[in-house]
Amino acid sequence: MTYRAPLNDILFAMRQAAGDGAFAEDGLYADLAGGVASATLEEAAKFAETRLEPLDRAGDREGARFADGAVASAPGWREAYRQWIDAGWNALAASKEHGGLGLPFLLNAACTEIWNSANMAFALCPLLGYGAIEAMEAHASDELKQVYLRKLIAGEWTVSMNLTEPQAGSDLSALRTRAEPAGDGAHRIFGQKIFITYGEHDMTANIVHFVLARLAGAPPGTRGISLFLAPKFLPDADGEPAERNDVRCVGIEHKLGIHAAPTCTMIYGERGGAVGFLIGKENEGLACMFTMMNNARLAIGLQGVGVAERATQTAIAYARQRRQGRSGRSDAGISPIIEHPDVVRMLMTMKAYTDAARAICYLTAAALDGARRLEDKVGAREAFERASLLTPVAKAFSTDIAFEVASLGIQVHGGMGFIEETGAAQLLRDVRIASIYEGTNGIQAIDLVTRKLRLAGGAPVRREIDDMRACVKDLSSSNVAAFRTMARCCGDAVDAFERATDYLQTSVATRRDDALAGASPYLRLFGLARGATLLGAWALAAHRSNGADPAASERIVTARFFAHNLAVAAAGLERAVVDGAESVNAALDMFAGGGHVG
Amino acid sequence: MTYRAPLNDILFAMRQAAGDGAFAEDGLYADLAGGVASATLEEAAKFAETRLEPLDRAGDREGARFADGAVASAPGWREAYRQWIDAGWNALAASKEHGGLGLPFLLNAACTEIWNSANMAFALCPLLGYGAIEAMEAHASDELKQVYLRKLIAGEWTVSMNLTEPQAGSDLSALRTRAEPAGDGAHRIFGQKIFITYGEHDMTANIVHFVLARLAGAPPGTRGISLFLAPKFLPDADGEPAERNDVRCVGIEHKLGIHAAPTCTMIYGERGGAVGFLIGKENEGLACMFTMMNNARLAIGLQGVGVAERATQTAIAYARQRRQGRSGRSDAGISPIIEHPDVVRMLMTMKAYTDAARAICYLTAAALDGARRLEDKVGAREAFERASLLTPVAKAFSTDIAFEVASLGIQVHGGMGFIEETGAAQLLRDVRIASIYEGTNGIQAIDLVTRKLRLAGGAPVRREIDDMRACVKDLSSSNVAAFRTMARCCGDAVDAFERATDYLQTSVATRRDDALAGASPYLRLFGLARGATLLGAWALAAHRSNGADPAASERIVTARFFAHNLAVAAAGLERAVVDGAESVNAALDMFAGGGHVG
Repeated sequence: MTYRAPLNDILFAMRQAAGDGAFAEDGLYADLAGGVASATLEEAAKFAETRLEPLDRAGDREGARFADGAVASAPGWREAYRQWIDAGWNALAASKEHGGLGLPFLLNAACTEIWNSANMAFALCPLLGYGAIEAMEAHASDELKQVYLRKLIAGEWTVSMNLTEPQAGSDLSALRTRAEPAGDGAHRIFGQKIFITYGEHDMTANIVHFVLARLAGAPPGTRGISLFLAPKFLPDADGEPAERNDVRCVGIEHKLGIHAAPTCTMIYGERGGAVGFLIGKENEGLACMFTMMNNARLAIGLQGVGVAERATQTAIAYARQRRQGRSGRSDAGISPIIEHPDVVRMLMTMKAYTDAARAICYLTAAALDGARRLEDKVGAREAFERASLLTPVAKAFSTDIAFEVASLGIQVHGGMGFIEETGAAQLLRDVRIASIYEGTNGIQAIDLVTRKLRLAGGAPVRREIDDMRACVKDLSSSNVAAFRTMARCCGDAVDAFERATDYLQTSVATRRDDALAGASPYLRLFGLARGATLLGAWALAAHRSNGADPAASERIVTARFFAHNLAVAAAGLERAVVDGAESVNAALDMFAGGGHVG
Repeated sequence: MTYRAPLNDILFAMRQAAGDGAFAEDGLYADLAGGVASATLEEAAKFAETRLEPLDRAGDREGARFADGAVASAPGWREAYRQWIDAGWNALAASKEHGGLGLPFLLNAACTEIWNSANMAFALCPLLGYGAIEAMEAHASDELKQVYLRKLIAGEWTVSMNLTEPQAGSDLSALRTRAEPAGDGAHRIFGQKIFITYGEHDMTANIVHFVLARLAGAPPGTRGISLFLAPKFLPDADGEPAERNDVRCVGIEHKLGIHAAPTCTMIYGERGGAVGFLIGKENEGLACMFTMMNNARLAIGLQGVGVAERATQTAIAYARQRRQGRSGRSDAGISPIIEHPDVVRMLMTMKAYTDAARAICYLTAAALDGARRLEDKVGAREAFERASLLTPVAKAFSTDIAFEVASLGIQVHGGMGFIEETGAAQLLRDVRIASIYEGTNGIQAIDLVTRKLRLAGGAPVRREIDDMRACVKDLSSSNVAAFRTMARCCGDAVDAFERATDYLQTSVATRRDDALAGASPYLRLFGLARGATLLGAWALAAHRSNGADPAASERIVTARFFAHNLAVAAAGLERAVVDGAESVNAALDMFAGGGHVG
C-alpha cells in the first residue's frame, strides 16, 4: 500500500505535546493558531505522498552511483529535491533573520516524521543540515553567515557533517584530520573522513562540508578539535559557486539500506589543502557541535517514528486483505488475518510503540520550542533541560523500536515479507542505521546516565518523574475502570523507573562501570515508563473529548495495550539495571583474561 | 573474521543434553563413545570452515540465477555440494536400511548447527530433505523406497517441499493443486506452488518434489490433502534420471537474504500433468507431513543457533581489535571496545542467548533420539512427547533470538556493521527468514498453546516444569553464593512460567482467543525459563568438573548473565500472557469495526 500521513494522529500528538492552550492566539504556538498547523501538514502530506514516496523503491533498487569522483543521485531525486526546497520546506524552523520561516520545532518535527515515512533516504539529505544551521547561527562570524546561511536555510546548498575517521567513530578524541592557518584568514585542511552522508551528490550547485580537524599544537583529545566550514565550491564575490575546493569523494559504501543516500569517503588536501573557515573558537569545535546535538539526534528519533508509522500502516493494510485460517469472527469462511489474536498482538505492538515514540519525540521538540520561546527564564531553562534529558531517549528508544516494528512488519507479511518487492524488508534495512549514526544508541544510553541524570543536580529527571506520576494520578482518579487498571500498570513502570534512577544517580559517581553496564536497559525503561504515561494521558484526553476526537476509542485501546503488554517489561529492566552489573563485570574480567570465549 | 566451530562448547552441550553416562559404551549413545562424536565434529568443522564458509559471501553477492527455466547455483556451490555428499554428511542420521549411517539426531543436530554457521543458504538445501526421508520411511510404498530412498539419503538427489500456494501459506486448507489418478498406478498433478526452496538448481542430477495436492472429490479443508512424490526426471528401469517430468520452475524470488538458496515458483501440469506417486493414504497427506515436523522445525531452530554463534564470534573478535574510548582497564591509551561495559552487555546477550538456544535445541534432539532408541516404552513415549513439546520452542525461540543476536552483532560493529562487506548485515538478512518458514513463529506459539500444552493431558509440560525445578534446587543447594543468587532468578522465571502455563491450560478450552493472544509471549517465557535453568545446570556441571572443563568459568559467567539480565523478563511476559488478552481483544473489535486505525 501507499503511505498516507496520519494527520489527525500527528495533530493530536502535537497538541498533547504543546500542552493546553498552547495553540491558542495567545499561546506559545500562536503562529500555529487558526489552522496553520493543519494546513501546513496537509501540504507536507501531499508532497510526501505524491512526490517522495513514489521515489522510495526505485531509490533502493538503483541507489546512488559513484563514478570518477561524482555521485549520481537516484532517478527523479534531483527534481524532487528542487521542488521540495522551492516549496520552502527546508526553511520551516530556521530563524527569520536569514530567510527562515521561524516556525516551531514541533511543526518541523511533524514534517520530519512525514518525510521519513515517505522516503527515509531522501529525508536524510536535509536532516543533518538543521543542526549545522543552528551551529552557524550560534557560532559563525557575520561574514560566514552572510555568504552561507541564506543558501543553507533555503536548501539551495546542502550540508555534510564530516566527523568520523577510520580510527575515530564514537571516540572523536582520536581524530587526525589537521588544519593549518593559511595567512589569508582561512585555513587549509588535510585528512580523510569516512561515512559522510551526502558528502557528494548532484542535487545542488554546492555542498558545504562541516569538518572537525586539529590545529597544530592543539591539546590532545577532544579539547583540541576545531570546527571548519569547507565548501565544495568556493563562492565568488557574488556568492555564487566558483573555484573547486580541494576536497573530493573517492568512493561510496555498499550498505544494508538507505541505498539512495550516498555514504562517502572524503579526502581533504590532496592538492595543497582544502580551504576551510573556522566556526567558533579554536579548539572549541566539539562544543559548537554539541550546540546542535539535541536537534540532530531528535531528528534521527523522528526517522524512527516515520519508518515505524509506515511499517505499521503497511502491515495493517496487508492484514486486512490477506486471508488465512478461520477466526470464528466473520461468517464468511477464510478470515482476514487481522482477525487472528496473534496477528493483532503484532499490529498493536507496532502501533503502540510507534505512538509512544511519537509522543516522546514530540514532547522533546516542544521542549526545544519552550527553551527558545518562553519568556519566563526559569521556564525556558527547564524546557531546555527537559530537551537535553529526553533527547537520548527520543533518539535511541524511537530507533530501537522502529527496527523492532519494521521486523514485526515483515512477520505480519509472512513469506511475502522476505520478498524485496513487498517493501517491508526495505523499511527494516533502511532504519537499521538509525540506531548507529548520530551517536550509537549505546552512546545515547551512556550520555543519559553519565551526563543527563546529573544535569542541574538531577532536577530534570525528578521533574520528569513528577510529570509521569501526575499522569498516573489522573488515570487512577478516573471513574472508568479500564483507566484505573491502566494506572496500576503505569504506576508500576514509573516506580521501577524511579528506583532504577535512584540507583544510577548514586552509582554513577562511585561505581562507574556498574552504572555503564545498566545504561542501555535503563534507557529502554525510561522509554517504557514515559511512553506508557504519555499514552495514558492521550487516552484520557481522547476520552474527555466527548466524541470530538474520532480516534478516541483507538487511543484508549492503544494505551491499554501498551500498559498491559509492553510497559510490563519495566520490572525486568529494573532488575537488569540494578542487579545485572555484577555479571557484566564478571564478563569484563573474563574477556580481559582473554579466556576461552571467542 | 572467519568462523571456527566451537567444538568444545558443542560437545559439552551434547553431553549435557544426552544426560549422565549416555556417551558410555553401554549408554544410549554408545555409538558415539570412544571419541566418535568429537572425531566426527572435527571433520564437520574442517569441511565447514574450509569449504562452506568461503562460499558464503560470494553466494550472497552473486546469488542463484534464473534463466529459461533453469537455476544456476552460485560459483563453487555445485562442487562443494558434491564433496559434501561424497563425505557422507547427508546420510548421517538416516536409517541404515537404505544406506544411512544411523547415527543419533543429536550428532546431526550439532553438524546442522555447524553447516548453518558456515553458510546458511547452502545448509538449507539438504536440511529440508531429512524430514522427507523420514516421511518416506514411515509412509511410502516399498517400491518407492527402493527407487528413491538411497539416492535421497546419499544426497545424490535433493528434496523440495511443495506446500505453499499463493492463497495457502500458514493455512493449507485453502490448497488448490489437484491430482488425478492416471490409471497406471501413478497420478497426474496440476497447479502452482510458490516459495519452493531449492525447487530448481543445477547441483544434482535429479530433484524430488514432495507435493501436497487434492484428489477429485476429496473433503474440503486439510482432511482432503494428499502427499505425492514428483521427481524432476522420472527414473528409468535402472533408477537413473530419464524422462523430464511436467513440472518446471518459472522464476525465483528476489529476497532479503539467503540469496544463493533459490526460492522458486513451480508449475505442475502444463503439458498433460506431472507424474506423481502417492505417499501414504489418500487424504492423509497432512498427517504424513506432520511425521517429519519435529525434525524439520528443530533443524530451523538449529539454523538460528548456527547464525547466532557466527554473529557472536564475529562480534567478539571485532570488539577485541576495534579501539575507541578509554575504559580505564588497560593502561595503554585507547581501549579495545570489549573493555566497555555497554559493549560487553551486548556481547554477553549474544552469547547467553546463543547458548540457551543451543541447550534447548540439543535437548530436543536428544529427546528425538530417546523416542527412537529407548527400549523402555514409557521412556520412549515420554521422550517423544518431550520432543513434541519442545519443538515449537526450539524453532521459534532460537530463530527469534538469532535475529536479535545478529542485530546486536551489527550494533557492536558500529558504522561498519551497516556496510555489506563486513558480513554482519548478511547474517541479519539471512536469518530473518527462519522466523517465517517451516511454520511462522506465531504458528509455533499457537501450536504450543493449543496442542502441545494439552498433549497427554498436559503431562509433558508438567514434567518439563519438574525438570526446571530440579535445576533450581541444585543451584540453590550449592555452597557457592553466586549459584544461590542465580537460583532465585531462575526460580522466579520458573514460577512465572508455571503460573502462565496454569492460566493457558485453563483458558485455551474456554476462552480460546484469550489463550491465542498470549501465545507468543508465552513461548518466549518458555524459552527464558528453560534456557535459564539449562544454563544453570551447565554452570553447575562446569563448576563440578574441577578444572576438567577449560571453559568452566565462562559457563558460570554466561549462566549468571542470562539469569540476572535476560531471564528477569519473565515477570513482564507472564503479565502479558495473563493480563494482556483483554486489550488484544479490544483491539480485535477495534479492527473489526474498521475504525480509524489503519
